Amino acid sequence: MKPNSFEIPPRSGAAFEIKAGQVLTVIDPLGGQVADLLAIAQSDRREMISSGRTLDYAETIYLTTGNLLYSNRSNVMLEITGDTVGRHDFLLTPCSEATFRLCYDDEPPHQGCLGNLHQALSPYGIAEDDIPVAFNCFMNVPVDGATGKLKVLPPLSKAGDHISFRARMDLIIGLTACSAPASNGGSFKPIHYRVD
Amino acid sequence: MKPNSFEIPPRSGAAFEIKAGQVLTVIDPLGGQVADLLAIAQSDRREMISSGRTLDYAETIYLTTGNLLYSNRSNVMLEITGDTVGRHDFLLTPCSEATFRLCYDDEPPHQGCLGNLHQALSPYGIAEDDIPVAFNCFMNVPVDGATGKLKVLPPLSKAGDHISFRARMDLIIGLTACSAPASNGGSFKPIHYRVD
Repeated sequence: MKPNSFEIPPRSGAAFEIKAGQVLTVIDPLGGQVADLLAIAQSDRREMISSGRTLDYAETIYLTTGNLLYSNRSNVMLEITGDTVGRHDFLLTPCSEATFRLCYDDEPPHQGCLGNLHQALSPYGIAEDDIPVAFNCFMNVPVDGATGKLKVLPPLSKAGDHISFRARMDLIIGLTACSAPASNGGSFKPIHYRVD
Repeated sequence: MKPNSFEIPPRSGAAFEIKAGQVLTVIDPLGGQVADLLAIAQSDRREMISSGRTLDYAETIYLTTGNLLYSNRSNVMLEITGDTVGRHDFLLTPCSEATFRLCYDDEPPHQGCLGNLHQALSPYGIAEDDIPVAFNCFMNVPVDGATGKLKVLPPLSKAGDHISFRARMDLIIGLTACSAPASNGGSFKPIHYRVD
């Protein structure tokens, strides 16, 4: 891997800082894996990525190249500058111990992306209760417009597919290789990322 | 109005407490109005209503009678026990000063439901940054399943329509009569509520 490239092992998470203007690329190296992404303002950690603001301003639930990701204060945090997949989710919260307890047979329940994000972001003082809906890269959640029903299907991403985000402010990023069987077709795979 | 009934004037908000087992009924007295609803656990105010948890467990974006509203800790806060409309939104954040700055010509921009919720919930120590996606009673946000595009259309509620929630824990409730022209068809109307 290149010096500015990193691997997140299966069912784990990472946290790191990027500066305004830098481009974060999230790569699905094997295909069919999900990466939950959080963004927090370095200048004030109470400013965080907001699904509700973003969907309101974007007027779509399927975000892709050209869309902006907003904070809870309606500031632009990230701009999607490239996307080889075109299907990501911004409706669902990171899977958690409770998700595994309620939806899966994992014994003991895995701490999930929520636990992994909390663990990775703890050094930045982020509490588990503070973690909002993440931008779930490659997660495939089609919605039936007539009934409202949603399904969590395997990602459409193939090996090497990627999505890139240009930072519009200095950010702390939380990123996972997802732990939930349903969101990645039952396989647990790594996620790669690069900062340019 | 009955002794246990209350009015929220147009473009304002209220906060109040309900006990586990009590039923909150939100009424649209004139029709075509939206009410943003927040729920916060009395026992620990860091536990709040979560759109992402709720949509994940309900497997639908259109919640109605029988659906449960979950907290960020995956506990059931409210159960929808009655609904004469069948169309509410749980995707978008409360309208805010930024919404009015970005989407409307209001001068000076109105503080919106976000400002109204913050003002009403301030005595409970809730900061504006902490306010998550609200359950937007009567808000009509159809999603095109194929393209993901969403629209904010006038509510389907007629005069006297209502939705009821049974509390599953002791809660602090924040509730508004919405301030955004797009969500209520350009009119500003009151909201009524009742606690039984």
